[in-house]
Amino acid sequence: MNTIGHLINNRPSRLDTNDRVAPVYNPATGAISKYVAMASRETVEEAISAAEAAYPAWRNTPPQKRAAIMFRFKELLEQNADRLAELVGEEHGKIGHDAKGELQRGIECVEYACYAPELLKGEHSKNVGPAIDCWSEFQPLGVVAGITPFNFPAMVPLWMYPMAIVCGNTFVLKPSERNPSSAMLVAELLYEAGLPEGVLNVVNGDKEAVDVLLSEPRIQAVSFVGSTPIAEYIYTTASAHGKRCQALGGAKNHAIVMPDADMDNAVNVLTGAAFGSSGERCMAISVAVTVGDSAADQLVAKMKERMQSLKVGAYTDDSNDFGPLITREHMEKVKGYIGSAAEQGATIVVDGRDVQVPGHEDGFFVGGTLIDQVTTAMTCYKEEIFGPVLVVVRVNSMEEAMQMIDDHEYGNGTCIFTRDGEAARYFSDNIKVGMVGINVPLPVPVAYHSFGGWKRSLFGDLHAYGPDAVRFYTKRKTITQRWPSSGVREGADFSFPA
Amino acid sequence: MNTIGHLINNRPSRLDTNDRVAPVYNPATGAISKYVAMASRETVEEAISAAEAAYPAWRNTPPQKRAAIMFRFKELLEQNADRLAELVGEEHGKIGHDAKGELQRGIECVEYACYAPELLKGEHSKNVGPAIDCWSEFQPLGVVAGITPFNFPAMVPLWMYPMAIVCGNTFVLKPSERNPSSAMLVAELLYEAGLPEGVLNVVNGDKEAVDVLLSEPRIQAVSFVGSTPIAEYIYTTASAHGKRCQALGGAKNHAIVMPDADMDNAVNVLTGAAFGSSGERCMAISVAVTVGDSAADQLVAKMKERMQSLKVGAYTDDSNDFGPLITREHMEKVKGYIGSAAEQGATIVVDGRDVQVPGHEDGFFVGGTLIDQVTTAMTCYKEEIFGPVLVVVRVNSMEEAMQMIDDHEYGNGTCIFTRDGEAARYFSDNIKVGMVGINVPLPVPVAYHSFGGWKRSLFGDLHAYGPDAVRFYTKRKTITQRWPSSGVREGADFSFPA
Amino acid sequence: MNTIGHLINNRPSRLDTNDRVAPVYNPATGAISKYVAMASRETVEEAISAAEAAYPAWRNTPPQKRAAIMFRFKELLEQNADRLAELVGEEHGKIGHDAKGELQRGIECVEYACYAPELLKGEHSKNVGPAIDCWSEFQPLGVVAGITPFNFPAMVPLWMYPMAIVCGNTFVLKPSERNPSSAMLVAELLYEAGLPEGVLNVVNGDKEAVDVLLSEPRIQAVSFVGSTPIAEYIYTTASAHGKRCQALGGAKNHAIVMPDADMDNAVNVLTGAAFGSSGERCMAISVAVTVGDSAADQLVAKMKERMQSLKVGAYTDDSNDFGPLITREHMEKVKGYIGSAAEQGATIVVDGRDVQVPGHEDGFFVGGTLIDQVTTAMTCYKEEIFGPVLVVVRVNSMEEAMQMIDDHEYGNGTCIFTRDGEAARYFSDNIKVGMVGINVPLPVPVAYHSFGGWKRSLFGDLHAYGPDAVRFYTKRKTITQRWPSSGVREGADFSFPA
Amino acid sequence: MNTIGHLINNRPSRLDTNDRVAPVYNPATGAISKYVAMASRETVEEAISAAEAAYPAWRNTPPQKRAAIMFRFKELLEQNADRLAELVGEEHGKIGHDAKGELQRGIECVEYACYAPELLKGEHSKNVGPAIDCWSEFQPLGVVAGITPFNFPAMVPLWMYPMAIVCGNTFVLKPSERNPSSAMLVAELLYEAGLPEGVLNVVNGDKEAVDVLLSEPRIQAVSFVGSTPIAEYIYTTASAHGKRCQALGGAKNHAIVMPDADMDNAVNVLTGAAFGSSGERCMAISVAVTVGDSAADQLVAKMKERMQSLKVGAYTDDSNDFGPLITREHMEKVKGYIGSAAEQGATIVVDGRDVQVPGHEDGFFVGGTLIDQVTTAMTCYKEEIFGPVLVVVRVNSMEEAMQMIDDHEYGNGTCIFTRDGEAARYFSDNIKVGMVGINVPLPVPVAYHSFGGWKRSLFGDLHAYGPDAVRFYTKRKTITQRWPSSGVREGADFSFPA
Repeated sequence: MNTIGHLINNRPSRLDTNDRVAPVYNPATGAISKYVAMASRETVEEAISAAEAAYPAWRNTPPQKRAAIMFRFKELLEQNADRLAELVGEEHGKIGHDAKGELQRGIECVEYACYAPELLKGEHSKNVGPAIDCWSEFQPLGVVAGITPFNFPAMVPLWMYPMAIVCGNTFVLKPSERNPSSAMLVAELLYEAGLPEGVLNVVNGDKEAVDVLLSEPRIQAVSFVGSTPIAEYIYTTASAHGKRCQALGGAKNHAIVMPDADMDNAVNVLTGAAFGSSGERCMAISVAVTVGDSAADQLVAKMKERMQSLKVGAYTDDSNDFGPLITREHMEKVKGYIGSAAEQGATIVVDGRDVQVPGHEDGFFVGGTLIDQVTTAMTCYKEEIFGPVLVVVRVNSMEEAMQMIDDHEYGNGTCIFTRDGEAARYFSDNIKVGMVGINVPLPVPVAYHSFGGWKRSLFGDLHAYGPDAVRFYTKRKTITQRWPSSGVREGADFSFPA
Repeated sequence: MNTIGHLINNRPSRLDTNDRVAPVYNPATGAISKYVAMASRETVEEAISAAEAAYPAWRNTPPQKRAAIMFRFKELLEQNADRLAELVGEEHGKIGHDAKGELQRGIECVEYACYAPELLKGEHSKNVGPAIDCWSEFQPLGVVAGITPFNFPAMVPLWMYPMAIVCGNTFVLKPSERNPSSAMLVAELLYEAGLPEGVLNVVNGDKEAVDVLLSEPRIQAVSFVGSTPIAEYIYTTASAHGKRCQALGGAKNHAIVMPDADMDNAVNVLTGAAFGSSGERCMAISVAVTVGDSAADQLVAKMKERMQSLKVGAYTDDSNDFGPLITREHMEKVKGYIGSAAEQGATIVVDGRDVQVPGHEDGFFVGGTLIDQVTTAMTCYKEEIFGPVLVVVRVNSMEEAMQMIDDHEYGNGTCIFTRDGEAARYFSDNIKVGMVGINVPLPVPVAYHSFGGWKRSLFGDLHAYGPDAVRFYTKRKTITQRWPSSGVREGADFSFPA
Repeated sequence: MNTIGHLINNRPSRLDTNDRVAPVYNPATGAISKYVAMASRETVEEAISAAEAAYPAWRNTPPQKRAAIMFRFKELLEQNADRLAELVGEEHGKIGHDAKGELQRGIECVEYACYAPELLKGEHSKNVGPAIDCWSEFQPLGVVAGITPFNFPAMVPLWMYPMAIVCGNTFVLKPSERNPSSAMLVAELLYEAGLPEGVLNVVNGDKEAVDVLLSEPRIQAVSFVGSTPIAEYIYTTASAHGKRCQALGGAKNHAIVMPDADMDNAVNVLTGAAFGSSGERCMAISVAVTVGDSAADQLVAKMKERMQSLKVGAYTDDSNDFGPLITREHMEKVKGYIGSAAEQGATIVVDGRDVQVPGHEDGFFVGGTLIDQVTTAMTCYKEEIFGPVLVVVRVNSMEEAMQMIDDHEYGNGTCIFTRDGEAARYFSDNIKVGMVGINVPLPVPVAYHSFGGWKRSLFGDLHAYGPDAVRFYTKRKTITQRWPSSGVREGADFSFPA
Repeated sequence: MNTIGHLINNRPSRLDTNDRVAPVYNPATGAISKYVAMASRETVEEAISAAEAAYPAWRNTPPQKRAAIMFRFKELLEQNADRLAELVGEEHGKIGHDAKGELQRGIECVEYACYAPELLKGEHSKNVGPAIDCWSEFQPLGVVAGITPFNFPAMVPLWMYPMAIVCGNTFVLKPSERNPSSAMLVAELLYEAGLPEGVLNVVNGDKEAVDVLLSEPRIQAVSFVGSTPIAEYIYTTASAHGKRCQALGGAKNHAIVMPDADMDNAVNVLTGAAFGSSGERCMAISVAVTVGDSAADQLVAKMKERMQSLKVGAYTDDSNDFGPLITREHMEKVKGYIGSAAEQGATIVVDGRDVQVPGHEDGFFVGGTLIDQVTTAMTCYKEEIFGPVLVVVRVNSMEEAMQMIDDHEYGNGTCIFTRDGEAARYFSDNIKVGMVGINVPLPVPVAYHSFGGWKRSLFGDLHAYGPDAVRFYTKRKTITQRWPSSGVREGADFSFPA
């Protein structure tokens, strides 16, 4: 069976004898499909050394030349979309249309990296004093690292290294060990686009590899996306080692449904937002907060009906709406949350625990689940389920709904369904959440804005991708310049340098 | 013999019965190679109508989608570089390496157009008053026009319409009637990249077509590059018809050679700057101002030697340095300037008037020419020659050199050769010229800055391409918003809209 | 009787023997209160010469030092608010609270000028090629001019010269000859704040002075605010003389009242927007477009009632809502418009023609006037009345209302009253007007945005004040720099220059 | 004897019974001049509560209104410059001209805070999808804290809270316990300028107070300036508590003196840079690196001569160049560094250890000291002395000099003295230091750029004051908006809400 190695200095499938291996599953069948190497300290250090060696020349490459590689990278990603979607489907389980959607969002981050010559412009001040000028440059950091999660195996790496690299840094990526293949292929395509050897390196691994990246003094910065406990560990550890760090964690995204909402529209878009990609998205809507019982009753009734047509199955059938969960353990955990809701007094309106996918009896499937009458005290409300489960909490006022959202530990995304300008403005202004949708259930910012939650959904000052990524992957240098006369201009040195 | 038509609504080679024709020459042979249609008023109006019809849908197309077409356009331009260089060579005469260099600068403007989602961001102010917000959008103008010169037949159109179009405008281009083929092919490639019908239209023609574009009320803006008298006419006429206009005109670009300059380097780069593309560049260096006789003597001696190896000939031989002039009339005019210099007392150090190009005896060739002891009173100093002629003016101080530059009617580009920080800073700060080089003889700004001269080299507020082009092709709209309470948020309207 | 002179080189009350004089009225009494000199060509040229002489030193003064004067200027304007309001009231007629409001908006433009060090930052690109840097500076133009209208005698000059001057230009102002005193005092305060002699100069005058400013070659740019026919003349003439120009003209600002609008709020704010400052504002709402007869009937009824309490009178009584018109001629013209409406079939709901102001029987007063059932064919709809007259046009759909606005020759400001997010967004996106209010009747952009209409309300590329003013009052210079090695760094020249 | 308390909710001189006290010295006399309260946990929590209570209203105050207070604050600071300089002199020891210089730099940061309406503009994107808009706002964080050092008691607090407050945050400041009085007065002036109660609070104290600020969950961010070990503790502790943090630490700023430098100019400006404020500046030049022995010999000779005229003494005499060190302990430490240099083989060229200041025999004075022949192995090179001591390290090449700088643990400021464009550009590009001077010995960025070192001179992503401070004191919120049709625009809801 195939074992996936690392990519160091553009040598694919490198394996160190110290590296352990871990299985990679096909979640639709429940079977192991391949193995992946778990990098030892030595392997990670070798990757860092490769990045370090590549840095000086890359740093001095004009940004426009760096961007030229990103233009070609974009073309190659588009040309290889089918292959990439297949790899994502096989190891993650998501359906082809969803995998391609993920890839498209990643490609848009590559497009943003193409803008580097504009984005890297510094600020120039003439005459800060008499004949004294001052300007600020945004210089690269050196070798930086990214650690990415299983749920967007192709996209999240593309949030990070295109911008890091186009800013002049060199990079070490550690993708999720659950589904490393698409990240490996994407990295190979960047080399095919013309990247010099060593500028990007991929190591597969687990905590051993991560801990090297967090402590190695040559790593200047770490970007992470994953769960909140790990994000907090990453941030605290990397910070204590003097590194710049941004660590994105978990979420519990609420949608407020106001009585004046266009209910058919709300139900329609919430279905995708709650169950798409089996709910394994940090921007998935997992809580619907209905204002007034009438809105609640309508929403639950229409949603229940809409969910009849949801189709769960393997990634190989593009007519499916969503696929399995990532592991058997995670499937059991999600089912446990549904069970706890029932035990704690909620009403299971649609129960996905016993979903059957013919031909894939051992796949890690949970069907779309709708739970009504949930309270903020219940486990299924307090914790991030990361499965195809939408809970409904009924409140009596918009203020009550907003207070609930603000009280939750997470602050990633949220949205409101309303037709009212004033309600929307009040909500978006005051809610303590980083990404807000107004009638947009998944308010993932476009690639030319930045992605980031508030509260315990993000540790760090700067958000991911977009303008904030430029600042994250560069440091400011400010130069103040005055030229004393050397007599050249006045002609005193006329004879020089004959 | 082939007759080139127009491109309206993506229908190539359209010809109207009213259109006249004009000959297109191969300047290397002196022979007519094809004909080109001269658009009548009706043809131009038809092009405008096509652009007008395409406008509403194009305006509402998200900028990112418009940029996606530019990404593909860039790929196609790169793939067709050889074909385009061949067309440029055949009709303009410039050598392949030079034609490809021109194309590359044009492609970089397409890359800048790809940044549209970033460039079109408006300014958003929260709480300009209590619960009042204000923001500015940069909206497209509508149908805009470009009129481009013979000397960069592939590049200058790409200064204009990629940015105009990506900003949401639709476009009518009138390229030079001397060498229209490359502009036609470039436009076809943009359609191949996915441009909707009618967004770009090309009409070939002369003053008849131009005057329609300047006066037709549906044209919102005009961009022009050419000579100063025409630029002034274009600007005044378009302005009087209420149109936004930027009109770039002629140049007389001086290089100051300071006594401390690295003379070998100066001679080397000045050779390309003065004679490249036969001097038919609005950024060509046509005057070397030497400070001190020692610098002058060195420069003239080294330049004379360097010019021995200059190779003039047809575009078909890539080892040539430069090719013929654009027309027989222009060749005679350039020779006349050289003759006038001799008559008015200057010293012809190297005389290119009798250059022989075997096998191309009827081509419009003038060889590289160096004229020393030129004064500001001579015709060859005062006027733009637009040929491979470098004149040397000797002065005794940098101040004298700068005064001379400031006194000239043109203010396009200039440069200084020095090793001295103070001299360079003083020069770049004070000189009344829009584009300044410090040891860079052709200070053409990169595509992510903007191109524009001062004084009578540019009429209009905003420069060409780069950030200024975004402002030129958009108009600011400022929105101030306050939402009165409708009771939705407070719950008063709970029953609505059941 | 006092005669107001000019302010050249900070010498107040200068008078040339060639200068004619014109009367200045107190519109509340109808009496001449003083005279003002009408500058001859010689006087204007003297002012230009003063500005020209002051330019070189001012241009080289660091922006932060220039801004320091603006900080002090702001303080002095605040300290002199009462004196200034008195002068505005006496010569313009507007009530104290209104005059102070005007002044406050002007002061906010001075505050914006204080930001100059930030606003003048150029764009700096490192490594546009190997070891080649490029940056753009925004340099001042030289001597620039402003020509300002009677209706905001204190504010509009402050739209112009604080920004022009803080950018490094020197200035010649020609204020309205109707009410020059406040502009004179404001200019004196700027000198009191520390402005060097000659940087600002004020000439009073009429067309003779204006024509000098439009044609004198030393004037680099002209800013104008006034009526459209004059704006067009200014723009065309200045452009033909090679000057940068922005000319703001007339307006006919429509407010759409949607059926879902908060009608009490709409009536309340429309009252101020229509009748404040007697309607002599280019942002006054002069047309209410009601969608549906129910909205129309409500609006007219409530507005009629609201207008009962409008108080018209002299500026000396701060409880008045608004004052007289500027001249007897203008008063008659406004009354003529009201009469024409009646003749052409409209319904005069409230008629202000016979308003009585006890003790001010000869003042130029017209009372608040409401006209219903107006059509687009009527004179009172087509032309700018510039008086306290609100006309109501009834339509049946929002599309009809928007088409009417787009068809009007002016495109200065507009607003919509609605509670609906979708209607507001559609309106603000599509309407062909430069400044848009959503439930904001006077959408004058705050000082840190820019002011400008579309269509025949503004001639030029760049709007007034705010970010656009920075671009209007500066020109871009782009510098490309490469340093050849002189051996200093490598140590070859160690002995130099001992 | 007077005891300085705290400033909570604008109640001056508040004292809690739990608070301890510490002495405040007059360093020029060596005597205790007053005492200062050391805040207990309860006192700090009370300050935080005051800030928390003030936050909601302040957050919703329009930025322009917040900036209006900063405009008045600037005026008051200027009016109170003498009083403030007196307080700084008395407690810190620096001479009046130096104290006023410090204050002026602080005032410039207040000026920058006045620009808030411009600086807080968000990014607005129209049509990120069909009729979908997206924009980013920069919202305040909440309650934030600043901890400031003794060496710039008036300026460093002004680096922090004006920007924090104008961005909408409320603030708790803990100034240095060595010299708290000027910070107290400055804070009182901000209240006099109109700050609402509780927006700024000052607590005096030591580690007990600091630790509350680092761990209290209501504190959202911490800014710190001090020594590197404390900065690292602050950063690690605050980060581990989930706070945003920027912590500025120590420095060892090198000046490279090239053989082509204007030596008289270099000596002149280095004198101020090395000995000004007794070297107690994190931007002081403490190492001169001479390239070539000729440059070294010249520099040492000229510097020795120049230092003869240095005048050390009490702050009360404005003709003094610099004053005492901050404490007796610090004075002894500085003398110890000088002694170690001698012991380790360096040459003490000028020895300030035995300086006599008549009438101030118990003051903490050390005179200007110059040490030649220093090596990188010596203690006086490796550690930050923070006294009036300049060491000279002799090297043979610029590369050697740069390697030395890059190898040092600190990377705050550096400069080069040269006349050569190429050397300057190479140095500023490659040196691993955050603030670079070219012939500018103290390259402290102006207030509209940002201040920050690299390596162990700054912990955190964003620099102090200027544009980076705006980002540090705000968090990004991104809103994506789509309006479903409610029928209002199309007229379906015509009857609503009659």
